[in-house]
Amino acid sequence: MKNFTYCMPTRVVFGAGESENIGKLLACKAKKVLLHYGMGSAVKSGLIGRVKKALDDQCIQYVELGGVHPNPRLSLVRKGIEMVHQNGIDTILAVGGGSVIDSSKAISIGSVYQGDVWDFYCGKKIPEKVMPVAVVLTIPAAGSEASNSSVITNDEGTDPDKRGINYDIIRPVLAVMDPTLTYSIPAYHTAAGGVDIMAHVMERYFTNEKNVDFTDRMCEATMKTIIRALPMVLEHPDDYSARAEMMWASTIAHNDLLSTGRLGDWASHRIAHQPSALYDLTHGAALCIIFPAWMKYVYKHDVQRFVQYAVRVWGVDQDFNNPEKTALEGIHRLEEFIKSVGMPSTFSDAGISYARFEQMADRATGGDTFTLGQFVPLTKKDIYEIYHLAL
Amino acid sequence: MKNFTYCMPTRVVFGAGESENIGKLLACKAKKVLLHYGMGSAVKSGLIGRVKKALDDQCIQYVELGGVHPNPRLSLVRKGIEMVHQNGIDTILAVGGGSVIDSSKAISIGSVYQGDVWDFYCGKKIPEKVMPVAVVLTIPAAGSEASNSSVITNDEGTDPDKRGINYDIIRPVLAVMDPTLTYSIPAYHTAAGGVDIMAHVMERYFTNEKNVDFTDRMCEATMKTIIRALPMVLEHPDDYSARAEMMWASTIAHNDLLSTGRLGDWASHRIAHQPSALYDLTHGAALCIIFPAWMKYVYKHDVQRFVQYAVRVWGVDQDFNNPEKTALEGIHRLEEFIKSVGMPSTFSDAGISYARFEQMADRATGGDTFTLGQFVPLTKKDIYEIYHLAL
Repeated sequence: MKNFTYCMPTRVVFGAGESENIGKLLACKAKKVLLHYGMGSAVKSGLIGRVKKALDDQCIQYVELGGVHPNPRLSLVRKGIEMVHQNGIDTILAVGGGSVIDSSKAISIGSVYQGDVWDFYCGKKIPEKVMPVAVVLTIPAAGSEASNSSVITNDEGTDPDKRGINYDIIRPVLAVMDPTLTYSIPAYHTAAGGVDIMAHVMERYFTNEKNVDFTDRMCEATMKTIIRALPMVLEHPDDYSARAEMMWASTIAHNDLLSTGRLGDWASHRIAHQPSALYDLTHGAALCIIFPAWMKYVYKHDVQRFVQYAVRVWGVDQDFNNPEKTALEGIHRLEEFIKSVGMPSTFSDAGISYARFEQMADRATGGDTFTLGQFVPLTKKDIYEIYHLAL
Repeated sequence: MKNFTYCMPTRVVFGAGESENIGKLLACKAKKVLLHYGMGSAVKSGLIGRVKKALDDQCIQYVELGGVHPNPRLSLVRKGIEMVHQNGIDTILAVGGGSVIDSSKAISIGSVYQGDVWDFYCGKKIPEKVMPVAVVLTIPAAGSEASNSSVITNDEGTDPDKRGINYDIIRPVLAVMDPTLTYSIPAYHTAAGGVDIMAHVMERYFTNEKNVDFTDRMCEATMKTIIRALPMVLEHPDDYSARAEMMWASTIAHNDLLSTGRLGDWASHRIAHQPSALYDLTHGAALCIIFPAWMKYVYKHDVQRFVQYAVRVWGVDQDFNNPEKTALEGIHRLEEFIKSVGMPSTFSDAGISYARFEQMADRATGGDTFTLGQFVPLTKKDIYEIYHLAL
């Protein structure tokens, strides 16, 4: 087990109806908030209206900034920073999912910094101060409501440049998580979110660190929760308990509790970013296609870890004389699960050909200049093979 | 699932050698600390000396207050508060286990309050301010390093009065957890601590709340970790990985993550307090005796939950035609485990007779004026029966 630090200072307020309390929860802490949200679904659903009323009731002033795109953009972050300065804002209130929260985190660090906010994303500067970010979560998947990460796309040049940062200081101070807000998420996005949550855990699960049984078991607990709850919410979108389990699991999957004592892999996320960007494929869908292929490519590196995954996560009946068979059965179960929740498990399912595999593998490795992943470091050639396995 | 709030702001710094970094970790935050510790083992082991050197190296001043008893006393808390005021202390540094940390929490809230610190423990006052508490943990069991609780014994009257509080504001700001410090814990106290950790989880596991599968599974993950690691550390006290798993599990077991969405029971802890006080029985040993008896007394209230416990925690081969048999086998496995780690599983094992069962049941229920527990509310008569079952 590796030495680690862990701190999750985000105050989670969880449960049906809690989103109505956002005003009370911010009272005494916020005087004027930047109310930041996405492309309009939270407005249409009436949520933004209810949030405004809750703020009004506590005499908390606000200015609004909607329009966050699924890949949140630097240009809107800059606009947010300007609005913070012009309006004497003291708190950012994100109402939405991962993109809105990531955008809010960028505004938070950018608005208390004299220089250019992109400095943080370029690695030129480490954030030392933040403006508090509070969240009303609407989509459980990214885990940004309690995570230390923010990913922003610089849309100002000719070639969009997507970069992420990880600093404990940017974790939100408050995350209001009301599972009833997730009833209206369409089946496809519910399933994509569910697999994204699974992927956050699997990236941490496949580690070379030995003797991390406790975090292994908590990872397994989280994965089994999604495997049980996701089909339930797809069948009954207003199943409160299953929606609640999904929502809470999404936070735990990505707040770093499941990384304690180990290095995760994270190759699959980066391999999946390329088709996601080129073909406008939902992040969760890209992970559905890439993760099983990655597994097939690397499982021989540590067959016993894949046997453990098969047995403990998927309940595979272990073939003690044939570890490879057991390991492959675990991967097969994941594929079957992905299909069963209506997601693509291959590029073909998503209508994507091999045409740009070479280009994607090249971009993923910076023109073959670095490898991806900790479990097995992968070169451009490896990634090209994985794309083919995913065809 | 019940609505809940969850916040664990304690910064955990975990791993071999991290205790040497306590000075650096406090630098810029503390100028003068109250160095608070127990009955001398941390002095004898040289730990206090190393902590002092680490503080000296960062020019952090300190005054020392040792002498915390296993049931931390109000009189010493008062002395600590006086020392804080006299010496311009800005941080309490607890070096020890649960008792030292609980005492430090009391000093922390008492020293920034104009009135009497006992007001908080009597329920007369809610703490609104704290002085920061940092911890170097030496015994994993109580979970106080990241919990919101503090239990203090008022030793100033004729009849000692032990009272506890639970407030999020009293969680330590920093917990340094170095598993190598636990190598020297004697086998008996290691085992007592291990069962105490199990008990913290079991109190939360046996709930009437339905649809809390995710927390169930995290509870099971934590219990299975102790079941695996405790025999390993008893066989090899310097098994780093197993000590580390025990230490991290002890924090997770009691920082309220495993309570999310549910009410726990907590009768067993309160039933165990009586023999503990009357016969000077270690807290963990008392739990070893009481918990299996409590289970036998209440399991019919929800046989299926005990079947789940038996199957998922102890790997019992389920008898699908006989749930009671499966449930009882789970309880039997717990008893066998307790015996296997050298702990008493009955009053007889601990040399305690039935002589004071009536008195203990009476005291536990305030003279039969209230019940104990949420899973099954227990009267004085019930508790008397449980004591007999534990004979």
